[in-house]
Amino acid sequence: MTTLAIGLYDHFTALDAIGPYQVLSNIPDVTTVVCAAERGVVPDDNSLMKFDVEHTFDDVPRPDVLLVPGGFITRKIAEEGHPIVDWIAAAHPHTTWTTSVCTGALLLGAAGILDGLEATTHWASYDHLAGYGATPTAERVVRQGKIITGAGVSAGIDMALTLAAELAGPEVAQAIQLGIEYDPQPPFDSGSPAKAPAEILELVQAISFDGD
Amino acid sequence: MTTLAIGLYDHFTALDAIGPYQVLSNIPDVTTVVCAAERGVVPDDNSLMKFDVEHTFDDVPRPDVLLVPGGFITRKIAEEGHPIVDWIAAAHPHTTWTTSVCTGALLLGAAGILDGLEATTHWASYDHLAGYGATPTAERVVRQGKIITGAGVSAGIDMALTLAAELAGPEVAQAIQLGIEYDPQPPFDSGSPAKAPAEILELVQAISFDGD
Repeated sequence: MTTLAIGLYDHFTALDAIGPYQVLSNIPDVTTVVCAAERGVVPDDNSLMKFDVEHTFDDVPRPDVLLVPGGFITRKIAEEGHPIVDWIAAAHPHTTWTTSVCTGALLLGAAGILDGLEATTHWASYDHLAGYGATPTAERVVRQGKIITGAGVSAGIDMALTLAAELAGPEVAQAIQLGIEYDPQPPFDSGSPAKAPAEILELVQAISFDGD
Repeated sequence: MTTLAIGLYDHFTALDAIGPYQVLSNIPDVTTVVCAAERGVVPDDNSLMKFDVEHTFDDVPRPDVLLVPGGFITRKIAEEGHPIVDWIAAAHPHTTWTTSVCTGALLLGAAGILDGLEATTHWASYDHLAGYGATPTAERVVRQGKIITGAGVSAGIDMALTLAAELAGPEVAQAIQLGIEYDPQPPFDSGSPAKAPAEILELVQAISFDGD
């Protein structure tokens, strides 16, 4: 059995965690553990979706696969310190895969494991990622050895399918993709700074939609 | 203000709800209410992700926008009856938009609102959807008047961006798409029965990955 630990913290972005969760929890022989610093309710970044978490980081000190979602608050807790950063730092030497979605990469960075590596994060947080010694890379999914980082929020699904293929083979990954009917057809082509209309990019930058 | 009510029930599929939630809760002037038959913990379809729900259906009898996720259990509760079906039936005449993701469409069907209409659902549930008088349509997002149905699981993100453009205009929808960096790049092209390799389709059908 492979243990997958999804580490949550107050004000994470829900889709960052649930996208990969829906992919990875479907892999046969993967045991998924949702955990946080303490048992209890963990609110998402707008405090409308609340998660009842039954396991602590101490319950899963040595997961095979570690997954860290992002959230607006990551910049703050990456700088100030947080139990999830300590957990990542202690667990990473023993993992098979250490992964992040969006600004979860800042927490990997704060744990000291991205120094000198290429990595990705939400497009608005490249500079912050660079502050941890990483080389920000505008790719959907970046793999460096056993570390896989995904771009912003929705990229967790693509990251997780990549990881599923590594864990269980491409057939299982494709079966999961079919199971969740992941045949994306966005009604607009505005999902990256390179593709979005200039006025949309300016709008999003103006409202500081960075770091989620 | 527009009130968006996301109706949950035990054993719904987490991504069905969280995908659209992440899009729609970002729309200015939308108030999002996550609700269920009773307050308390609502587990997802594999009981690993647990949601602490603070509002009941009775708290939001007249939402402007009603959103119903799917889950393996929908076939059963659509046939047997369930408070969410009663809520949909009572609320729908007053909504601006009534929407579903995946097999949430079976619950709309059970509420009697899809008879004679085109609709979509998870690809493995077309026959069940037809049982409610709907014409199953293999499109990612199907709109009939004020009813919008999305295909399986991950299609909720595309459905929600379509709805966001209706609620707040295409600029806001594109800004949200950029905010969640929704520039999908699946590592495989296996997300629909028409695209998946035959052996993958047979594998998924054999393990009854239907109805989620």
